[in-house]
Amino acid sequence: MKKRPLILVTNDDGITAPGIRTLISVMNEIGDVVVVAPDSPQSAMGHAVTINNILYCNQIVVDDGPQIEYQSSGTPADCVKMAVSEVLDRKPDLCVSGINHGSNSSINVIYSGTMSAAVEAGVEGIPAIGFSLLNYSWNADFEPLRNYVKKIALNVLENGLPDGVVLNVNFPKVEKFEGVKICRQARALWEEEFDKRKNPQGKVYYWLTGKFVNKDKGTDTDEWALANNYISIVPVHLDLTAHHFIQKLHTWDLSDE
Amino acid sequence: MKKRPLILVTNDDGITAPGIRTLISVMNEIGDVVVVAPDSPQSAMGHAVTINNILYCNQIVVDDGPQIEYQSSGTPADCVKMAVSEVLDRKPDLCVSGINHGSNSSINVIYSGTMSAAVEAGVEGIPAIGFSLLNYSWNADFEPLRNYVKKIALNVLENGLPDGVVLNVNFPKVEKFEGVKICRQARALWEEEFDKRKNPQGKVYYWLTGKFVNKDKGTDTDEWALANNYISIVPVHLDLTAHHFIQKLHTWDLSDE
Repeated sequence: MKKRPLILVTNDDGITAPGIRTLISVMNEIGDVVVVAPDSPQSAMGHAVTINNILYCNQIVVDDGPQIEYQSSGTPADCVKMAVSEVLDRKPDLCVSGINHGSNSSINVIYSGTMSAAVEAGVEGIPAIGFSLLNYSWNADFEPLRNYVKKIALNVLENGLPDGVVLNVNFPKVEKFEGVKICRQARALWEEEFDKRKNPQGKVYYWLTGKFVNKDKGTDTDEWALANNYISIVPVHLDLTAHHFIQKLHTWDLSDE
Repeated sequence: MKKRPLILVTNDDGITAPGIRTLISVMNEIGDVVVVAPDSPQSAMGHAVTINNILYCNQIVVDDGPQIEYQSSGTPADCVKMAVSEVLDRKPDLCVSGINHGSNSSINVIYSGTMSAAVEAGVEGIPAIGFSLLNYSWNADFEPLRNYVKKIALNVLENGLPDGVVLNVNFPKVEKFEGVKICRQARALWEEEFDKRKNPQGKVYYWLTGKFVNKDKGTDTDEWALANNYISIVPVHLDLTAHHFIQKLHTWDLSDE
């Protein structure tokens, strides 16, 4: 890049989360940073967008860095739309989302607010990366991630990404990383266990809980990489078409008889 | 199928929407139907799941059909999790979601609550179909869809779907359908236009609006099919890995230097 890149930063844990503060600090080293992030936590929002309610978006100062920051009442996907349409004068060169407090590996990608922001940026034609650390603690140590976050962002700025592809980067919760692995999304799921309770009036309600089950034994998956102390990068595409199944579908009888 | 199939029905417009009532009525013709659907509209919820709030789920009677029905305070994805984990004795043979009042073609698949329910069912290993009609009206006429909905559901019950694949079916808003086309997801996006207003206290707020822009001229896309009065079926897969980009990513320098 000849000139200093314009970088949009967002997340789903809210604008004051330590993960996004680290990400902003790293991005300040490589470009002009504008932050548009949720004013409150938005985890597990998937790719929700706000169409039946109003949105607020206000400039704020969170720390003394050079970045310009806005907080929005919307979802992560709303924040990217707001940034592109209302806040920024030009399309950013890069959108980074995170660093999420918790995993977005394998099937978590579809529930993830962090990744929905990256995907939304991808839809808008902006190279985008979602970063996540496999540590849900608010006090997680993000410092060891800095060099890798910077290196991956610089690679995307330098090499670009194909149209319709964004990156899903997950860091294992370890003292020392073994390096980076390019992976495919593991075939995994959450097996739900609803915690059934009664409210003070005696009415039954539920808490969604569950355990993560990896059904994929492949050594080329993000789950394998993370379990073996590697940082995983999965390229994620926005074309959800199962192209391999189209030919078979043509053999079905779907006439209106 | 030898025995009568067990069919889970859900949607994102809420359990009283005419679209789901039609879908229930059609499914009653081919199987034993259990409905677990949101108690209020959940459009554009993407794949949101409820982890920071409680969920209610109550059996109700909406009409005099043979189906068993539950309404839940959760999102469409929550409803599927609730059905599988708490309501049903066994894994259903089919999950159908919709019929949505409005399009879920092309990029809308990622914002869609209707499709998130189908995707969630797919994650759980249940053959699943999302149905949508390109008509946002509450009073849309769903009757002309019945034969096709039934035929597609019977095909899925008979032929099954590959692991990790669900179907996204959209009906054009026309008097007479030209037939069914198997399609790929068109490359399209919403170009946002935020409607900026002031509240009674003078504070600025926004409404998200926008116009749908199809950038894909292919005649094998869902947008082409729908524009030409065909019903579109896109097979959607849950593995979001951009496999074609993995080899290229291996050439990047991602060492921690």
